[in-house]
Amino acid sequence: MTEQNERPSLEVCLSPALLHLYDVKNSVVVIIDVLRATSTICTALYNGAAKVIPVASVEECVNIGRQLGAITAGERDGKIAEGLVHGNSPFEYPRDFVEGKTLVLTTTNGTKLLHMAKDAIQIITGSFPNISAVCDYLVAQGQNVILGCAAWKDRVNMEDALFAGAVVSRIRQHFSMNCDSALAAETLYHAASSDLYEFMKKASHFQRLARYGLEKDIRYCLTPDGANVLPLLKNGELIAG
Amino acid sequence: MTEQNERPSLEVCLSPALLHLYDVKNSVVVIIDVLRATSTICTALYNGAAKVIPVASVEECVNIGRQLGAITAGERDGKIAEGLVHGNSPFEYPRDFVEGKTLVLTTTNGTKLLHMAKDAIQIITGSFPNISAVCDYLVAQGQNVILGCAAWKDRVNMEDALFAGAVVSRIRQHFSMNCDSALAAETLYHAASSDLYEFMKKASHFQRLARYGLEKDIRYCLTPDGANVLPLLKNGELIAG
Repeated sequence: MTEQNERPSLEVCLSPALLHLYDVKNSVVVIIDVLRATSTICTALYNGAAKVIPVASVEECVNIGRQLGAITAGERDGKIAEGLVHGNSPFEYPRDFVEGKTLVLTTTNGTKLLHMAKDAIQIITGSFPNISAVCDYLVAQGQNVILGCAAWKDRVNMEDALFAGAVVSRIRQHFSMNCDSALAAETLYHAASSDLYEFMKKASHFQRLARYGLEKDIRYCLTPDGANVLPLLKNGELIAG
Repeated sequence: MTEQNERPSLEVCLSPALLHLYDVKNSVVVIIDVLRATSTICTALYNGAAKVIPVASVEECVNIGRQLGAITAGERDGKIAEGLVHGNSPFEYPRDFVEGKTLVLTTTNGTKLLHMAKDAIQIITGSFPNISAVCDYLVAQGQNVILGCAAWKDRVNMEDALFAGAVVSRIRQHFSMNCDSALAAETLYHAASSDLYEFMKKASHFQRLARYGLEKDIRYCLTPDGANVLPLLKNGELIAG
């Protein structure tokens, strides 16, 4: 809790390699991996999945999947990883498939950040499909907030920065802001918001994913509130809040 | 050198804590510390200083200054550091003071990055007062370029990102670009360029410096080509190229 009459802080961390500069322990951390891990996580939960277990390695994914009789999912270099059954696309998790089930998901960038932030007051995941749920939660909590971009192998990426900026622009009046990364993200979002999809065509990840024919995924992952639920991390598992 | 028919790459590194992700060894690195180290460096050289020696600590600054009978300069927390004679303001280095002299300058963020980039093909320093000299040099070299922001204690800052974006917007057609940080910096610059000073009022460093009454410095440091010379690092010393 912050002191009375002082608004909590709102900061953006553009890469996991910068997270040590932030006061994780006294903050709610939002894990952001827009293309596509955190978009898929909220979609699965929105469609009734019991929980999503984020794991770092394919091996862990296979093992936990076997123990729990769960759906195993994850990609490496744009293809379903060997030993797993499903991919990272939100469209693979409609209600009639995922309802009541457990999804074990391995991603590289998002999972890494999630483990790095384990001392946070609370970890949630954010993406455009659940942006309103994220913003409502952050305002209601009244705690310091770090919007943590999963980035791409520690390099700043555009889509995560844009989402962070979208959140900043929605909730900044409830917080004190003294973070140039937050100002940068918000400015980027305003520059791009009239057509996020068009803007994203210039970004590196778009080009990577478009090679795999995933334009439909990208459009969904840039559209607000398609799966407006709040994934909360509890005991290493993401559940709908 | 890159292969024939392939343009060299243009990338932006937003914090020294991310520099390990870049191929420094095969690149020209531009050290960017807009408020105010690199603005002051080009100003001193433009006004006829023989050279500027960047050092990390106040102690080193005092010692080298004594050995060489040089001007010693540097600030900590907005004040001239104890043991040194001059500060970080470009206005402290007019021609009638600095011509023919050696300036030993200690800065925290900029010097740190400079030492980290020591394996680069060439290190130069960049800031708005010498932006044209920097751009002309980079285009003429035809090498891979990393625009390295000194940032603030490793945290991304607005002024260095804006300068990187200004360079990207001027020279990008000569390079291949696949770097979201470069795209972000360029987008920020376009959003801010109609009035950089006004935009910078929202940034954290502006607020820090404005407390010390340095609005005049900030205006100068955001204005193109007031000291249009190219500082090149040779044997640990910056000289006019």
